[in-house]
Amino acid sequence: MEDKLHSLFNILDLTGTFAFAISGATAARQRGLDLFGILAIAFIVACGGGIIRDLCIGSIPPAGLTNWRYLVTAFTASVITIGLFSLVQRLNRPVIFFDALGLSLFAVTGAQKSLAFGHNAEVAILLGITTAVGGGVLRDILLNRVPVILEKEIYASAALVGATIVVLGNHFKWLPSDLTAIIALIVCFGLRLLALHFHWNLPVYSTTKKIQS
Amino acid sequence: MEDKLHSLFNILDLTGTFAFAISGATAARQRGLDLFGILAIAFIVACGGGIIRDLCIGSIPPAGLTNWRYLVTAFTASVITIGLFSLVQRLNRPVIFFDALGLSLFAVTGAQKSLAFGHNAEVAILLGITTAVGGGVLRDILLNRVPVILEKEIYASAALVGATIVVLGNHFKWLPSDLTAIIALIVCFGLRLLALHFHWNLPVYSTTKKIQS
Amino acid sequence: MEDKLHSLFNILDLTGTFAFAISGATAARQRGLDLFGILAIAFIVACGGGIIRDLCIGSIPPAGLTNWRYLVTAFTASVITIGLFSLVQRLNRPVIFFDALGLSLFAVTGAQKSLAFGHNAEVAILLGITTAVGGGVLRDILLNRVPVILEKEIYASAALVGATIVVLGNHFKWLPSDLTAIIALIVCFGLRLLALHFHWNLPVYSTTKKIQS
Repeated sequence: MEDKLHSLFNILDLTGTFAFAISGATAARQRGLDLFGILAIAFIVACGGGIIRDLCIGSIPPAGLTNWRYLVTAFTASVITIGLFSLVQRLNRPVIFFDALGLSLFAVTGAQKSLAFGHNAEVAILLGITTAVGGGVLRDILLNRVPVILEKEIYASAALVGATIVVLGNHFKWLPSDLTAIIALIVCFGLRLLALHFHWNLPVYSTTKKIQS
Repeated sequence: MEDKLHSLFNILDLTGTFAFAISGATAARQRGLDLFGILAIAFIVACGGGIIRDLCIGSIPPAGLTNWRYLVTAFTASVITIGLFSLVQRLNRPVIFFDALGLSLFAVTGAQKSLAFGHNAEVAILLGITTAVGGGVLRDILLNRVPVILEKEIYASAALVGATIVVLGNHFKWLPSDLTAIIALIVCFGLRLLALHFHWNLPVYSTTKKIQS
Repeated sequence: MEDKLHSLFNILDLTGTFAFAISGATAARQRGLDLFGILAIAFIVACGGGIIRDLCIGSIPPAGLTNWRYLVTAFTASVITIGLFSLVQRLNRPVIFFDALGLSLFAVTGAQKSLAFGHNAEVAILLGITTAVGGGVLRDILLNRVPVILEKEIYASAALVGATIVVLGNHFKWLPSDLTAIIALIVCFGLRLLALHFHWNLPVYSTTKKIQS
């Protein structure tokens, strides 16, 4: 089954793992967690969404637990974050940047893997989003705050667009699937960065907007 | 396998989905979440408990992800909640009412589906409760508060009673299973409403009752 | 498959269930939860990590849901905690003691069960840790606080050491597997108690150590 997912999938998936692990390690270090806490949060942010996806599509055991490449990638990213923390912090909002990159990569690979396991378009789109946002939601739950994806600029919606492009491309086959994946990736990443830059938000309806702190 | 669960199951299950989605969308809108946040919380409250149940009984992929009826039902309920919010708010404690309805419906359908997949009475009762309270617990975790089910009037205990009636009915076969389901539903819903009205609570033992805020 | 896990596994696993249920029931009672809340938290702390492990290794339905021994053990521990609460409180830091015991037992049995299901060393170590810390993390999420394992004295690292000893013992077969299990248990438990006594911590890197409250 994994064979249907060729090399571009693996490159994108490990790049997403690296990006989310940087974002997770940075957040954990900013919160003052110890070495294990940093490694654990980095690994959970990087692999948590994919593990939930794998449980839902029946890929047992989840790739994040059984394939050493994910663990090594997440730990390498953590060590780089710890070692070069002053550099990482000097970069402009690095957590947000790596987070947007991981979001786009995982929306694409999450949808691809669900399709490769023979599931329908709805499953692929919902699990594309889940793969993309799951790690970040777990991070926020563990750090005891309302998940940022529920409050801020177009985020999961960008993952929805990326996953939908993958599903449409797989259905209509207008383009080679690698090209579709790259288009989906660029659209999702661009949408997220533009939303951050211009503070695009989805409509809010409530008259009582204050979130309890 | 799904064939064992005939039409009444589907009607009850989609009604529960609708009820919990109304409850989730209302809570999300009151917290000032954006359009995606409202849809996401509504979907998670409506389908989260069932997805956990399906993972535990080996129904892969979970029905909440693969069957479009759940998604459409949850989104319809969200749109109604957003569009008619002033009406929904004017109803007397609508979140609590729809919550009690969803609780009762899912306690019954959760136990039924576990039995239909060939699992034992313990699994059916525990997963009946999980289906019933899982979505609400996920909502409270995402909104960063102690799950209300751990603090208030007889709630999960009502789901326990409903699921147990389904399991006993399935074992002794005194009545047609549809009739057993309706009795379980009425008992659970009635118990929950009476508990709310009379503030019935289970015993509390601690001398330090204050919950940290 | 379960047959590969003979009697010592079952004894250790039920002892761990009992220890974690005591720790969970004590924490829940201290927070003023009602009878159901205490039973629910005790069961979740005792069985939550194992249920996540079973989902990941494909042991469906999870043993914690299908084997009545776990439920009965967790409820017995809860009743003892409620009935003898003044005694339990007088013991020196009983939550921490039973927690350390459950941690060590579950790190060993979690790794053993993953290996018995034919998974690799990485899966066994990661799920040994998950079994050991999963219940406590769920408890802290439900009680709405940052999981203590992310902040305090060597904890999950002790589980890592215990699970690794099981995996190495299984690979090299220098000793009978029961003896390896007992060594792993003693090392993990001793490490945790020594860390508590001497306040051993893993390195912390951040300059801003204050956790937001």
